[in-house]
Amino acid sequence: MAERGLFSGVFAHDDDDTGDQAWLTAMLHTEAALARALEQAGLALAGAGAAVTEAANAGTIDAADLGRQAALTGNPVPALVRALTRSVPAHAAAAVHKGATSQDIIDTAAMLLARRALAASAVDASAAADAAAGLAAAHSGTVMIGRTLLQQAVPVTFGLVAAGWLTGLDEARADLDRVRAGRLAVQFGGAAGTLSSLGADGPRVAGLLAEELGLRLPVLPWHTDRLRIVEVADACACAAAVLGKIARDVTLLAQPEVAEVSEGDGASGAGGASEVDAQAAGDQAAARGPAAGTRRGGSSAMPHKRNPVAAIAILGCTRQVPGLLATLTAAAEQEHQRAAGAWHSEWEPFADLLRLTGSAASWGAELLTGLRVHPARMRANLDSARGLPLAERVAGLLAPVIGAVAAHDLVAQASARAVAGDVTLREALLGVPDLRQRLDQAGVTDARLDAALDPAGYLGAAWAFIDAALAAHRAAVRGRPGDG
Amino acid sequence: MAERGLFSGVFAHDDDDTGDQAWLTAMLHTEAALARALEQAGLALAGAGAAVTEAANAGTIDAADLGRQAALTGNPVPALVRALTRSVPAHAAAAVHKGATSQDIIDTAAMLLARRALAASAVDASAAADAAAGLAAAHSGTVMIGRTLLQQAVPVTFGLVAAGWLTGLDEARADLDRVRAGRLAVQFGGAAGTLSSLGADGPRVAGLLAEELGLRLPVLPWHTDRLRIVEVADACACAAAVLGKIARDVTLLAQPEVAEVSEGDGASGAGGASEVDAQAAGDQAAARGPAAGTRRGGSSAMPHKRNPVAAIAILGCTRQVPGLLATLTAAAEQEHQRAAGAWHSEWEPFADLLRLTGSAASWGAELLTGLRVHPARMRANLDSARGLPLAERVAGLLAPVIGAVAAHDLVAQASARAVAGDVTLREALLGVPDLRQRLDQAGVTDARLDAALDPAGYLGAAWAFIDAALAAHRAAVRGRPGDG
Amino acid sequence: MAERGLFSGVFAHDDDDTGDQAWLTAMLHTEAALARALEQAGLALAGAGAAVTEAANAGTIDAADLGRQAALTGNPVPALVRALTRSVPAHAAAAVHKGATSQDIIDTAAMLLARRALAASAVDASAAADAAAGLAAAHSGTVMIGRTLLQQAVPVTFGLVAAGWLTGLDEARADLDRVRAGRLAVQFGGAAGTLSSLGADGPRVAGLLAEELGLRLPVLPWHTDRLRIVEVADACACAAAVLGKIARDVTLLAQPEVAEVSEGDGASGAGGASEVDAQAAGDQAAARGPAAGTRRGGSSAMPHKRNPVAAIAILGCTRQVPGLLATLTAAAEQEHQRAAGAWHSEWEPFADLLRLTGSAASWGAELLTGLRVHPARMRANLDSARGLPLAERVAGLLAPVIGAVAAHDLVAQASARAVAGDVTLREALLGVPDLRQRLDQAGVTDARLDAALDPAGYLGAAWAFIDAALAAHRAAVRGRPGDG
Amino acid sequence: MAERGLFSGVFAHDDDDTGDQAWLTAMLHTEAALARALEQAGLALAGAGAAVTEAANAGTIDAADLGRQAALTGNPVPALVRALTRSVPAHAAAAVHKGATSQDIIDTAAMLLARRALAASAVDASAAADAAAGLAAAHSGTVMIGRTLLQQAVPVTFGLVAAGWLTGLDEARADLDRVRAGRLAVQFGGAAGTLSSLGADGPRVAGLLAEELGLRLPVLPWHTDRLRIVEVADACACAAAVLGKIARDVTLLAQPEVAEVSEGDGASGAGGASEVDAQAAGDQAAARGPAAGTRRGGSSAMPHKRNPVAAIAILGCTRQVPGLLATLTAAAEQEHQRAAGAWHSEWEPFADLLRLTGSAASWGAELLTGLRVHPARMRANLDSARGLPLAERVAGLLAPVIGAVAAHDLVAQASARAVAGDVTLREALLGVPDLRQRLDQAGVTDARLDAALDPAGYLGAAWAFIDAALAAHRAAVRGRPGDG
Repeated sequence: MAERGLFSGVFAHDDDDTGDQAWLTAMLHTEAALARALEQAGLALAGAGAAVTEAANAGTIDAADLGRQAALTGNPVPALVRALTRSVPAHAAAAVHKGATSQDIIDTAAMLLARRALAASAVDASAAADAAAGLAAAHSGTVMIGRTLLQQAVPVTFGLVAAGWLTGLDEARADLDRVRAGRLAVQFGGAAGTLSSLGADGPRVAGLLAEELGLRLPVLPWHTDRLRIVEVADACACAAAVLGKIARDVTLLAQPEVAEVSEGDGASGAGGASEVDAQAAGDQAAARGPAAGTRRGGSSAMPHKRNPVAAIAILGCTRQVPGLLATLTAAAEQEHQRAAGAWHSEWEPFADLLRLTGSAASWGAELLTGLRVHPARMRANLDSARGLPLAERVAGLLAPVIGAVAAHDLVAQASARAVAGDVTLREALLGVPDLRQRLDQAGVTDARLDAALDPAGYLGAAWAFIDAALAAHRAAVRGRPGDG
Repeated sequence: MAERGLFSGVFAHDDDDTGDQAWLTAMLHTEAALARALEQAGLALAGAGAAVTEAANAGTIDAADLGRQAALTGNPVPALVRALTRSVPAHAAAAVHKGATSQDIIDTAAMLLARRALAASAVDASAAADAAAGLAAAHSGTVMIGRTLLQQAVPVTFGLVAAGWLTGLDEARADLDRVRAGRLAVQFGGAAGTLSSLGADGPRVAGLLAEELGLRLPVLPWHTDRLRIVEVADACACAAAVLGKIARDVTLLAQPEVAEVSEGDGASGAGGASEVDAQAAGDQAAARGPAAGTRRGGSSAMPHKRNPVAAIAILGCTRQVPGLLATLTAAAEQEHQRAAGAWHSEWEPFADLLRLTGSAASWGAELLTGLRVHPARMRANLDSARGLPLAERVAGLLAPVIGAVAAHDLVAQASARAVAGDVTLREALLGVPDLRQRLDQAGVTDARLDAALDPAGYLGAAWAFIDAALAAHRAAVRGRPGDG
Repeated sequence: MAERGLFSGVFAHDDDDTGDQAWLTAMLHTEAALARALEQAGLALAGAGAAVTEAANAGTIDAADLGRQAALTGNPVPALVRALTRSVPAHAAAAVHKGATSQDIIDTAAMLLARRALAASAVDASAAADAAAGLAAAHSGTVMIGRTLLQQAVPVTFGLVAAGWLTGLDEARADLDRVRAGRLAVQFGGAAGTLSSLGADGPRVAGLLAEELGLRLPVLPWHTDRLRIVEVADACACAAAVLGKIARDVTLLAQPEVAEVSEGDGASGAGGASEVDAQAAGDQAAARGPAAGTRRGGSSAMPHKRNPVAAIAILGCTRQVPGLLATLTAAAEQEHQRAAGAWHSEWEPFADLLRLTGSAASWGAELLTGLRVHPARMRANLDSARGLPLAERVAGLLAPVIGAVAAHDLVAQASARAVAGDVTLREALLGVPDLRQRLDQAGVTDARLDAALDPAGYLGAAWAFIDAALAAHRAAVRGRPGDG
Repeated sequence: MAERGLFSGVFAHDDDDTGDQAWLTAMLHTEAALARALEQAGLALAGAGAAVTEAANAGTIDAADLGRQAALTGNPVPALVRALTRSVPAHAAAAVHKGATSQDIIDTAAMLLARRALAASAVDASAAADAAAGLAAAHSGTVMIGRTLLQQAVPVTFGLVAAGWLTGLDEARADLDRVRAGRLAVQFGGAAGTLSSLGADGPRVAGLLAEELGLRLPVLPWHTDRLRIVEVADACACAAAVLGKIARDVTLLAQPEVAEVSEGDGASGAGGASEVDAQAAGDQAAARGPAAGTRRGGSSAMPHKRNPVAAIAILGCTRQVPGLLATLTAAAEQEHQRAAGAWHSEWEPFADLLRLTGSAASWGAELLTGLRVHPARMRANLDSARGLPLAERVAGLLAPVIGAVAAHDLVAQASARAVAGDVTLREALLGVPDLRQRLDQAGVTDARLDAALDPAGYLGAAWAFIDAALAAHRAAVRGRPGDG
């Protein structure tokens, strides 16, 4: 169960935990696995592994206490080793931390945190992708205006929008899986990466330790080769980037002036809810009334308001990511055999990045699962553009009749008149003297003109692209590793 | 008292707190001050201010509980308002949060956190500066080799090195004070920055609230003008930059191959300690033995090792700062009247930045207060350069005798021979046929040559610069605001 | 005249130049000023200063040539010194670069670049602020919907929006001026910061050099105290943050579904223009036709499209800033007397940051000067909210009649019905059985209800805040230093 | 041929080019390939592809001219399209840019730039890796002190240090290849990602365009799915991280007080050179003399100085990377179908990141190819530690004799005496009363004690790790794709 804090509802929305207790548990798991590996290698007495494991699982070691002692040494492991050693029987004491250095424990614990967090993020990214696939299929024919540079451009479908989200989510999930499966490795090198205190037995113990923990065995200890840390961070940042893009789209599409989507009410017990912002008098009423102001999606003071909480929470998480990624990338320049400060600077941002990505993914699954799409409003917004998004197409229709240059100029002028006079492009065109006559002569009937002005007929490859995204998603689903 | 976690010994080394409890306390202080301000303005019943203040100080509101509810609304304030309202007498309920929006409470609380954290950092920066001034004065004549691009260059003094640290610390302290005194302002704008629910009374209440809290009254609510946040971050980043530079110098000067400084044993009960890294068998002994491995500066396994813990901890803090600064700067692009996500992305990095700067400053004060300087080793390192740092000066001496070009070439060749043959520059020079004779003829005696090769005679403006830095420091000390 | 590149129209929109030629010119100015200072100090022959100045101004030194040679030494200054020395008469050769090191020249040149760039940015920020002040005054009564979390909230005025922009611009301008006036200092320390090769004359020459260049004389050489670099970057980042916020607002307000502002046609020959995106057949027509597709604000293919180019260009600039700021802040951790790599990593981002800030400021001045405001559309958007933004106020009106809790619940239910049934809040309220009767009894007439539903009556302190921002702006204008 | 600037010698050290001319060429290649694809698809007249290709290759379009026009539209493509259209025969005009939007051209051009730059970086990373492998093999038995937290720890070998570099370089190369082979895709979506103006032919043209350019065909146009950009950036950042770590090690090992490695003289015509810093009188001599001051590795003024220019240049490049990566990651949050500003903010940092990574890799290959290793100095530094790095091992030897706790305490005390008294650990130990006698009784002879104090006997798995790294490298070499 995750530790909860004042902002956890936003920034630690999933059940995963990367806080102090999770760190401590992962460190203790690592120490216990090491004792078992030493015993298997014949370097510790029989029973030592079980004894250390029992002590590690006993829950008697206090994180805050270790934190205080960390000031003496620059990290909490020496105090942890002392505490753990004190709590095992005498015969097992020699198996505690044998051959290891502090960094072995913290780095391996970081890998264990990452494994769980990446798995959780992948599961949520998959749920979000599945939901996006559902939206793409359901709305493959839901026409809406495409928007570029925050201006209306040409028609698209909401299915295509969702297919774009889907593709990003599938890519991000694949990257999370790739890194989780291939790059999480045990750290075990001893004081300076030679495992010298274990003599010739070092690599064998390292291999057993990797097996115990289910982590990869690296070619070398990676004390100052930090690519694994950076690659975990990269995978998180990719997932966060995709989620942030989706959230941004939702906040924009949910603007009341656009209103093409809205957030759902959230899953059981979870978010998806709306502002219950407390303002003015209504607030106190809300506080005292039975449920006023706490119903999902409601606001105590502004009853018309329905904040896209999930999308906002995603952005609150994802916008912290680039800075953390920069910190971890910069920290990879580490001196000699173990670094003076750069390594230490990784611990907090690494855990924060895992947590924020996990929270964003959890919110993302909730957001897309519950998303409400408003096709009628999409159509209405498109219609309010008065045919202008089809100007390009109409010019193509006229070109054979009056020539390409003349067609372009004519449509451009008609468009300007449509904008200025608040009429449709069709009306503006037919207001041009003699045009109707020439169109008639060329066989461009009203029906053909109307067809050209139908947005649903100007969608290009939208269907094909949706199909391709859905096919890729089905392949991705088949290729998913077991989650967990 | 600060909350403590697994890494607090390193990253929260001072007593200040920017964790959940500190946030909650600051939010409650803000709500209480608002109730008092409303009462003063005649907008709440007599006694309401005191009642809300009492409830806010009662310590009955749980941060984790608010955190859970924050998922509903995207921030913890609505739940806090409800909890606070429930805990006041009926006559005071209407005074809770009246006129305010969630962001007013969180932003003002952030300013209160910043005020305390900037003050604490300034105090520690001052202590560090005072210690640096002491070092500059004490070592104004302690000659050492200057190093550029991590190569030995020409002589300097350790006093000049310390004067450089001093100047940076004084500049950073001034910046912390400037921002604290001038840029911390109350936030009070209501739903969209108009304080509409207070009618015409809004600005008066805002003024009273600012007075209650001792914060500045801004020209406008700054809901989406985030310069204050960015400027606090800038001041922290400047302080961190100075501290990081000092820490980097110390780690380099403390390398055993250099050994010109070492860290002290730390203040009473605090850091300055050395590695107690737990490795191999010795570790268990340490764990069971009376105090082995826990003495300050000792290591259970590597008795010769004396890690510069304070300098390393500083770097562990300061290297997280640029990424956090980037996050906060990017977050300043906030939409319309209140932002969707960018604002939320500030909370965690803002508190982290305050905490890490404060921790680095605290470590910095400890580091410089206890720093041990080894003038003999400085001299030995300089001497081991065999006169080469004075090559430039010797060439100047020979130029009038044999011409500038010939002098330069001659000294260059002699230097190369000195390096290759492991002899001194003097020996290499005097090995040049006829040179002694020509020098004699020109009146360049052995004594003049020896004088030219004395590093202490080639220090340029080092003394003047130290004096200037000390004078500036005295002026800075006189100008310091009362701390706290 | 600035060097121009493929993207200069976007990222170097002002006339200022921070490219290679500007760097080279600034370095040569520094070398020339040093020669003159040496001559004044009696350390160079009479006429040497003028001779070096003449050679420095001759324009015969090629940047690309120096760039090639920079690979030998890690920076271009040694090659520049050789080239400059070769181009002066023999009597002046000894005055070239005397006492200086490469870093003295590059750092001082950076300060000269910064002085010009900060001044240019300040002028543009002032122009933008003046325009914002005009908008604030002109639209102090132009009612529009306030938007929080990208949802409609309560009414504000466009004058208040502009006043918010104004306050940010004035703050940013003040910061640019503060840093320009107070923090730009000459760098002159020689090989390791002692000016050793000048003996006791170093500080005097440094003072004369500062005078020659009109830069401040620092307490010490700041070779590895990089706060000046960081503070210039901070000031740029603050300006960029304010401009980015404004640009973001404009892109959102200019969405066709909102359409409350649009960009003007740009100044003579400059931007403010709209998309001329080239697509499909119309494009070729445009290319061959007389002016089709190149008129300002037109699009060859999509005649209805009017991209907010200035706002987009601003965001294209400002979003590069946080990363550059992080780089420069991280680079401040510099070793010993002169750094190995960190210093080098400053040159490009420092110049880029000055350029991007300058470009954003130039675009910002153009944007706000030409901004078109559409009050009718603002009113229409507000009206389309069907009275819901006033729900809070209506509840306040009903509370004395039916009790606060009942009032809140009633209005909440009526709001929900209004949303669901596409009717106004007023209609929904009056559809509640018996409500009219009870209101009549309590004296809440139709007129009072209608008044409560008038957005213009619910603006709180908007006028007062606008007045305060304008007053602060007038004070800022009076305090502006002479630009340039 | 790359464009050269004032700092190119440092920041664009390889021959690759990511400057304006490279961008323009890549855009023109894209337009030409599109025309050929259209012709193949039957959507352009026969010969149109060749005609557009000829015009695109003619070199008549001026980047600066396009840059000026970019201010009108926010990007240079519309002006490029007009210029290109004007320069083709009439029958080919309709094939220019047909179906495309500006972003299609710029994004595809970015992929072409990335392909070349990633290939060049991979080649240089491979050369660096091969050199590191050579060092690892040659120095597998070269004992040196291992350093942790910038303090001496326990013995390692230089071969193991080089093996660590090797592993990082191989990982980074693999990542560069993975992204280059798998993630570089054509961008072709038209105005809003539907390719609407090509009707049903869009996907076929996209496929032909991908074939023409040798890029992958994406599932969907990726206008606002920016993972490809982020992943290229990630791969660059990983390479930069590895190179930065190596460079940092070299700068530290090359410190005169350490002197365990030094840089070579550089390849023919290229870097690897040392400071020719221009100071004081010697400088002018250098400028006038035939070659003084320009010889590789020399300094005009400080003949003993030999700056590690390649390592410094690498750091100058790599430390700019985290900030650029943050910018590109943050930019991935792009609105709707094409973004307003975020996309624009990618162009400069993307090209800068490719350039800096390429420059660092080029410097890295040069650095490692020419690196000089000084085993005698390594041995001397190790010996000067007076046996203390073996304290841990000695305690293990004594434990069976006197018990583990007593052994640890005894060695700890002896170590402290050794440090204090400037004697060896052996001498300090044997100064303990009765110890020799007890050791004799337990069969710990002088020979065994001496053996325990031999660093070469305490290297643990160093050999095994080197072998593993070399084996992995051989596998990596076999798996390398053809470069180029």
